[in-house]
Amino acid sequence: MTKERAYFETLALQEHGRVCPNHVPEVYHFDRPMSLIAMRYLKPPHIILRKGLIAGIEYPLLAQHMSDYMAKTLFFTSLLYHSTSEHKRAVAKFCGNMELCRHTERVVFSDPYKVAQYNRWTSPYLDRDAEAVRDDDSLKIEVAELKSKFCERAQALIHGDLHTGSIMVTSDSTQVIDPEFAFYGPMGFDLGAFLGNLILAFFAQDGHADKGNDRQAYKQWILRTTEETWNLFQKQFISLWDEHKDGNGEAYPVSIYNKPELQLLAQKRYMANLFHDALGFGAAKMIRRIVGVAHVEDFESIADASKRAYCERRALDFAKMLLKERCRFQTINEVISAIQEIPAF
Amino acid sequence: MTKERAYFETLALQEHGRVCPNHVPEVYHFDRPMSLIAMRYLKPPHIILRKGLIAGIEYPLLAQHMSDYMAKTLFFTSLLYHSTSEHKRAVAKFCGNMELCRHTERVVFSDPYKVAQYNRWTSPYLDRDAEAVRDDDSLKIEVAELKSKFCERAQALIHGDLHTGSIMVTSDSTQVIDPEFAFYGPMGFDLGAFLGNLILAFFAQDGHADKGNDRQAYKQWILRTTEETWNLFQKQFISLWDEHKDGNGEAYPVSIYNKPELQLLAQKRYMANLFHDALGFGAAKMIRRIVGVAHVEDFESIADASKRAYCERRALDFAKMLLKERCRFQTINEVISAIQEIPAF
Repeated sequence: MTKERAYFETLALQEHGRVCPNHVPEVYHFDRPMSLIAMRYLKPPHIILRKGLIAGIEYPLLAQHMSDYMAKTLFFTSLLYHSTSEHKRAVAKFCGNMELCRHTERVVFSDPYKVAQYNRWTSPYLDRDAEAVRDDDSLKIEVAELKSKFCERAQALIHGDLHTGSIMVTSDSTQVIDPEFAFYGPMGFDLGAFLGNLILAFFAQDGHADKGNDRQAYKQWILRTTEETWNLFQKQFISLWDEHKDGNGEAYPVSIYNKPELQLLAQKRYMANLFHDALGFGAAKMIRRIVGVAHVEDFESIADASKRAYCERRALDFAKMLLKERCRFQTINEVISAIQEIPAF
Repeated sequence: MTKERAYFETLALQEHGRVCPNHVPEVYHFDRPMSLIAMRYLKPPHIILRKGLIAGIEYPLLAQHMSDYMAKTLFFTSLLYHSTSEHKRAVAKFCGNMELCRHTERVVFSDPYKVAQYNRWTSPYLDRDAEAVRDDDSLKIEVAELKSKFCERAQALIHGDLHTGSIMVTSDSTQVIDPEFAFYGPMGFDLGAFLGNLILAFFAQDGHADKGNDRQAYKQWILRTTEETWNLFQKQFISLWDEHKDGNGEAYPVSIYNKPELQLLAQKRYMANLFHDALGFGAAKMIRRIVGVAHVEDFESIADASKRAYCERRALDFAKMLLKERCRFQTINEVISAIQEIPAF
């Protein structure tokens, strides 16, 4: 990957840090010729969230912190806050990060749906499942729509790789790192990355259960966190919208959306679209981690291949359904219920 | 408006001219400091299409030429043909044309829906109609969705102002001029501009009828041309897609969309979305020409204000319905039938 990614990572850390300093580590210095970033050291006991999820550690503030991070970074870089000129200037700047966008397009929206050299899965257990993904026409049609949104829709400055490996945590601190894939894209891609990776962590728990800990309580904590993240995000995003409705934001000027009931209607429609995007992208991110090139430690750390395949298949089946049927879900609670209703095989 | 618009006009003439030289006048020279464009002189009998439509002149090749122009300029600048890197580079270049994008956003998607200084309409006849537009919540919610697509979706290099005043014609030549509003935006905006302005011309005909010519036959020619434009566009766009499906286009790689029936499904979905966009944008363009700042000569040239208001109200009512209910139309024939079924008041 291009060395220039450090430049875009720095830009994104700075832009996101300005609007959400509590959850973005400060950049002290950037040297472009050397691609050198000097930034805040996230001291122990900070660990990568994914490792905490594998270890079964609860983070009581995670939903609150991540919804705060996503609401602020997405709202303040969207046309709900930006004027058109600010937005177009910012979009143009991040168009330069094309190599990394292209990488995401391939590994998320293309490779899992075709025979590709570096695809892998828990073989032979999932051979048929991987083939079924490549043969699922309605899945491939839906993925194309998501891909087109990813490539064409400059909705906000997104992190671009917001999985649980890009987040460092302690019990009272949540820090988002590694935004090297940042660009102006669809908000749902970030929301989906985080929610989808939480759901992957949920499905992996059965593989981490042992005599001392059946992980049942922890699975419920993950689902609660998933639910709370969306609900708190939605609440905070809307309150930022209300707070800044008289500003320069081009999308819903108060001169037109001038009645409380009309504003409510606009917000409801906006959030519904965003929710469906988030579910679609989240599902796509789950699928690619099971049959694509890059896997996640949540599953990889399950040593017993048949047990791992069991967990992965349940996650994959759920993700395929979610991607295709995302628009029938109206609330995150309905999604959580759908997960809870999946029978053991 | 900024002098820089000549630069973007030149860029667009060159890009579109490269893929569709038959319908885009050649640029011989551009001097950026002077904002001077030297380009092909479109000799008489070329006239502005809008004037021809007011005069009741039939252009038998218009649908064929305009569908050719739109299919080529939109296809070859989209991700159906572009790689991501080409696309992002081109998008970034045209982000500079932000002043003119902002202008369009205001006059098309904002001003008609609020009290704005320069809005006007045929008063007092349409006073209530203009007020009804400002008070129509469901219309305003739909317009916000179109505006967001206009501002955020870099689907192809669009002309950006493709009304019948931006087209010069003779009986066998059709030349598209004035792409100073060009940028990477939604394809439906160009399609809608052209189709919407043909429909405006249709509704204006009753105001141009006189004893010598009741314009009934001409009205049918306009509707036939509207219908043929979309149908020919769709046909040619799909055949360009088929022809280039093995190329660099990022959207539907043949390695994934690898079966004829799957390709067909993808094309059907793509064209349905594009059709609904075109209807929505076309309707928005119609509305803004009746109650917004800039009007069209089709109506303005009807001297009798009550007769003009009659024509405008019929167009406005149709456009409002079309904008709100665009997704219930599956074919252009259904739209044409809906126009033909409008009763005389």
